[in-house]
Amino acid sequence: MLQPELKLRRDKIRSLMSAQGIDAALITCNANLIYTYGQVVSGYLYLPLHSPAVLFFKRPNNITGERAFPIRKPEQILDLLKENDLPVPTKLMLEGDELPYTEYCRLAQLFPDTEVVNGTPLIRQARSVKTDIEVEMLRRSSVSHAKAYEQIPSVYRPGMSDIEFSIEVERLMRLQGNLGIFRVFGRSMEIFMGSILTGDNASYPSPYDFALGGEGLDPALPGGANKTPLREGQSVMVDLGGNFNGYMGDMSRVFSIGKLSEEAYRAHQVCLDIQDKVASLANPGTPCEVLYNAAIEIATQAGFADKFMGIGQQAKFIGHGIGLEINEAPVLAPRVKQELEPGMVFALEPKIVLPGVGPVGIENTWVVTNEGAEKLTHCEEEIIELA
Amino acid sequence: MLQPELKLRRDKIRSLMSAQGIDAALITCNANLIYTYGQVVSGYLYLPLHSPAVLFFKRPNNITGERAFPIRKPEQILDLLKENDLPVPTKLMLEGDELPYTEYCRLAQLFPDTEVVNGTPLIRQARSVKTDIEVEMLRRSSVSHAKAYEQIPSVYRPGMSDIEFSIEVERLMRLQGNLGIFRVFGRSMEIFMGSILTGDNASYPSPYDFALGGEGLDPALPGGANKTPLREGQSVMVDLGGNFNGYMGDMSRVFSIGKLSEEAYRAHQVCLDIQDKVASLANPGTPCEVLYNAAIEIATQAGFADKFMGIGQQAKFIGHGIGLEINEAPVLAPRVKQELEPGMVFALEPKIVLPGVGPVGIENTWVVTNEGAEKLTHCEEEIIELA
Repeated sequence: MLQPELKLRRDKIRSLMSAQGIDAALITCNANLIYTYGQVVSGYLYLPLHSPAVLFFKRPNNITGERAFPIRKPEQILDLLKENDLPVPTKLMLEGDELPYTEYCRLAQLFPDTEVVNGTPLIRQARSVKTDIEVEMLRRSSVSHAKAYEQIPSVYRPGMSDIEFSIEVERLMRLQGNLGIFRVFGRSMEIFMGSILTGDNASYPSPYDFALGGEGLDPALPGGANKTPLREGQSVMVDLGGNFNGYMGDMSRVFSIGKLSEEAYRAHQVCLDIQDKVASLANPGTPCEVLYNAAIEIATQAGFADKFMGIGQQAKFIGHGIGLEINEAPVLAPRVKQELEPGMVFALEPKIVLPGVGPVGIENTWVVTNEGAEKLTHCEEEIIELA
Repeated sequence: MLQPELKLRRDKIRSLMSAQGIDAALITCNANLIYTYGQVVSGYLYLPLHSPAVLFFKRPNNITGERAFPIRKPEQILDLLKENDLPVPTKLMLEGDELPYTEYCRLAQLFPDTEVVNGTPLIRQARSVKTDIEVEMLRRSSVSHAKAYEQIPSVYRPGMSDIEFSIEVERLMRLQGNLGIFRVFGRSMEIFMGSILTGDNASYPSPYDFALGGEGLDPALPGGANKTPLREGQSVMVDLGGNFNGYMGDMSRVFSIGKLSEEAYRAHQVCLDIQDKVASLANPGTPCEVLYNAAIEIATQAGFADKFMGIGQQAKFIGHGIGLEINEAPVLAPRVKQELEPGMVFALEPKIVLPGVGPVGIENTWVVTNEGAEKLTHCEEEIIELA
């Protein structure tokens, strides 16, 4: 990562810190280190408001640079700050929504005369508006994602189960350069590479706020394929995370085994219509709830209110911010007054689940620009028949 | 998961709680929920010392049972306890090393008149000694793991890069039933399915305490394959996590492209000798440091002290407890006085990295029994030449 880009990102955080009277941040969680330091290390980026950032690191041992200090433990940080005439904070922020309780307390105790506050919401706010380089990385991730998806029909074999199909699609993604890891904000949600759902497994309820759940292979990892055979007349939705460079695009496409019911094609078209309508509204200044409400209105008018975003257990959103993690701000959900800004990147995923058939709908990655929402994931959007 | 098994596990935790005067636990992190409830949910298992456990859950919405209460938010828990004549704790433990700071504080505030302590070390202590059923699950996971590894030579093609080879081995593991997810204790370490390392990429230093690091494909996920071609005269070590049912076995095997240097075979044999020696010492009552010291002594006498467990950046252990997570207690490391107990399961991984060649050595999963250590991962241990 180039230094000017890191400086730009750090200054976005500093600007929010300044508004809250915070004069330093200590950053150590992986996604935030990638954002502010360009790579994962075992260490701490100390980011003062008015001085350049400093790295205190334990590993790897090949880090160099005059502003990088090797340490064995974080208890050395305060002395190193003082020895090197670096500013000691009066109000410090730590990653309170991400650090484990005991680790947060340990780091807070390093600075006995300092007020310590939770900085996670502020860092997430900074990260929610992407820089030009971040948008470019999401654009590249999306191109690779689409290249993998274009090859999906070639790996289908009649008689496959959902998990066998999933494994071949995972392989396509990996061959295209997918890093595999699926980064999620929060401790609860665990996902392997994404999900492939067919038939009524798509309506198996998830422990999470997902439109589509899936039973999964084991109660130790609920979600996704459960060895359902891919049967004539059923749909199968591919929804894998597109992490090709740390930045995760998100994209879902629907395939069919033979032809689907007429209702399924109609429901799919409703989702495409919702996508068009919501994208046309996704301009700077639009509150997120406006997008959600527009989607619900179309789904309801089309008669799919009870199947939109899942059946039985419906998801309470139609899209979500993405970036280094799959669930960033903003969230396109009811009662969210937050307004879209240029540089925000989100996944929009209107989906309908049909009993006896499976899921239909669409998901693409979009960036908000001054000229409106731009789609980053370009790949056939109609239901593709597998043969 | 059968109720008697869950009761047994809960009682192991209760027994440790009792010794510390703790009269209830509130458990919500995924690995601990799998351990005590048998599956991942969005919710909280309330485990009182002297009453049956109760589940408060948000999702999925298909949970039933008289001791399961749907909630929208944890703030409902205290009232529900009182309404149902369930015991309110005087000393409650939360998962302090696992819960984010803000979530821990929120849960602690649910019980204003209760002392709240960190229960993670206690739960990890309970989990470190496996039940018979847990050992059986690790045994089954290990059988599947070995079946996948036996097929590795069949997916090699001359001219492959390490990442292409890795992708085919990942596919073998998935086809054998691997769940994919690689569960790690602690917020820092992120691993996709494991690592495949060849040549000098094996000595690329890791951000973590690993014997073998690897550059990886991107600074956003350092570790593992980095597109190094598999070259004549180089070794390649396969070290993927064996998570086939929630329980993770661990196993490494070494392959060669053509023949390796004589030193490489000698170093490999030293690792096998270390494995034999350490396994023979791994009896109930033996302190972990004894195993570590025995390994170091053999490696040193054989002249490999500076290449044992990595070069440049050497790992400070030779093995680690495994179970629902890859890094459980005990750790086979210097100065660890903890004694082995029947039911403990660990990965033993003596490895040597040779400049210009790559990694050699072995890793297997072992269970401590009253009759000594029993190997769970049975698969050819010599270096296998790929062709």
